[in-house]
Amino acid sequence: MLNPDHHLRPGSAGEVLSPYLHARAADFLRSLRHHTECGADTAGAEEATRGLRAAARRISGTLHTFRPLLDPAWADQLRAELAWLSGTLAAEHACTSRLVRLVDALGRLSGGTATVPAPRSGGSGSQAMAVGAARAGALLERQLTLARTRAHSAALQALGSSRFHAVADAVALLASEVPLGPAAAAPAREVLGPQAEAVERRLLDAVAALPMAPAVGGEQLDGPWHQVRLLLRLHRYAGEVRGAEPRLYEAGRALDRHRDAAEAATAAATAARTPRIAPATAYALGVLHADQRHDVEAARHAFQRAWRRTAVTT
Amino acid sequence: MLNPDHHLRPGSAGEVLSPYLHARAADFLRSLRHHTECGADTAGAEEATRGLRAAARRISGTLHTFRPLLDPAWADQLRAELAWLSGTLAAEHACTSRLVRLVDALGRLSGGTATVPAPRSGGSGSQAMAVGAARAGALLERQLTLARTRAHSAALQALGSSRFHAVADAVALLASEVPLGPAAAAPAREVLGPQAEAVERRLLDAVAALPMAPAVGGEQLDGPWHQVRLLLRLHRYAGEVRGAEPRLYEAGRALDRHRDAAEAATAAATAARTPRIAPATAYALGVLHADQRHDVEAARHAFQRAWRRTAVTT
Repeated sequence: MLNPDHHLRPGSAGEVLSPYLHARAADFLRSLRHHTECGADTAGAEEATRGLRAAARRISGTLHTFRPLLDPAWADQLRAELAWLSGTLAAEHACTSRLVRLVDALGRLSGGTATVPAPRSGGSGSQAMAVGAARAGALLERQLTLARTRAHSAALQALGSSRFHAVADAVALLASEVPLGPAAAAPAREVLGPQAEAVERRLLDAVAALPMAPAVGGEQLDGPWHQVRLLLRLHRYAGEVRGAEPRLYEAGRALDRHRDAAEAATAAATAARTPRIAPATAYALGVLHADQRHDVEAARHAFQRAWRRTAVTT
Repeated sequence: MLNPDHHLRPGSAGEVLSPYLHARAADFLRSLRHHTECGADTAGAEEATRGLRAAARRISGTLHTFRPLLDPAWADQLRAELAWLSGTLAAEHACTSRLVRLVDALGRLSGGTATVPAPRSGGSGSQAMAVGAARAGALLERQLTLARTRAHSAALQALGSSRFHAVADAVALLASEVPLGPAAAAPAREVLGPQAEAVERRLLDAVAALPMAPAVGGEQLDGPWHQVRLLLRLHRYAGEVRGAEPRLYEAGRALDRHRDAAEAATAAATAARTPRIAPATAYALGVLHADQRHDVEAARHAFQRAWRRTAVTT
């Protein structure tokens, strides 16, 4: 790989860091070009957006973890802009997958997918559920489709803005030149390790402090779990920079599922506060909320299992 | 123990069966006397009722399992009457414990018991839940208290009825004399074993055929689980007759919890169909229903674990 950064000493930290950032910046630019070329091809545009976000996350994470080896003012500025961009681009996809998740769950919860040999009469929950599930589904579809449309417009607007063009310019520069600080001249094994280990230590501490809260009724204690998800991602990217074996993939997946279920549960609770909905609709949304919160709990257990199996050891 | 049954051969099945039935009949009569003496002592009356039901269940189970060793017409008649009595006496206690279970769950689900260090704003499920939980609790209290009052009156009426006096007379007779059939003269080890094993076989078959259904949306598949609960009880009483070590206690407890959670979930769903309730109330009842159904699922897993640990082997 071409590496025009000035005065990179052989074996220095910069010699490891620069090619990684060059490559991620190139990924970003390739995805951006792909997005421009897609036009009306929605699937292609979605894939391009995913690529943009993946590259932005990695650049941002690397700027964060290895900030002491970089020009700090430049790193902070670019990170803030990449965070804005990622957030804006993520919203549309999040609405879509949340809607899919909730509509699937409603089908399952109303007994739609269960093969029922001999339905018994009487006050079973399924009946009460079936009454409201269709209306709850329609309500969620209306609300989340509206949110998705808004998110789509916001994303298009962002991609056409001068703010975005400034980000794209900064990333284009990064593809050929990384503003390293003096510390990047130190040997890679002396400075990259400690930075990566600092992230790992934060991750270990955060995992050790994870609160065990009831699935339903403990919603306000989700924060630390979401935080671990972000730290796990930082840890993974720090590993990528150093060419380490990818690990903890399953633990990360469990925390993605945790986040998705928690946000879906919130969407159900939000929909239940829509004025003038029928009690049957509210009932179905309550069932749905609790179901998603139980999936939150299941994801926590899955994370704990995966974590124990592949636990980071300092 | 006095055993006035005529012509009991030493080592015969009757010699094992009669003392067991005598003792359970004596338990029944003692509890009945206790109940009469209690008057306004509610706790004492409840304990007496529990004693009556426990004795009735054991007599009924024994008549069922060892029917071929007894006068079958007499056994069938007494069993039907004991089933009526047990059912009538059980309803009041069931309403009370269902209400306690549901009100406890509502407290937990609305975050009442979780210690919340720093509540975050935003559309968390807790808030939507807190709005409706109090009203849902009040609704359930109203409905289940009414049902309990009705059950209490029905139980008092039953205990004063001529139908009950006939049952009490039959049990009083049983305390001193068991209407054995000719087969009871056979050696105990030749005839008691096969009868008990028939129950065990039915239990094993029923456990092997237990359907795995989703917790919510699979309510109509609860039946086989309730059936296993009854078979497990029959199996336990058949063991008591033969002086076997009590086993599968935990599995039985799990199925009791399964039944309680399933009935509580149904009560929540039923309450949600009350006309003109507020959406927030219906939402809380939906959350509650799903929560109880997840407890149904947890009880199934607990049963499976206990069953594997202490599995019956034929």
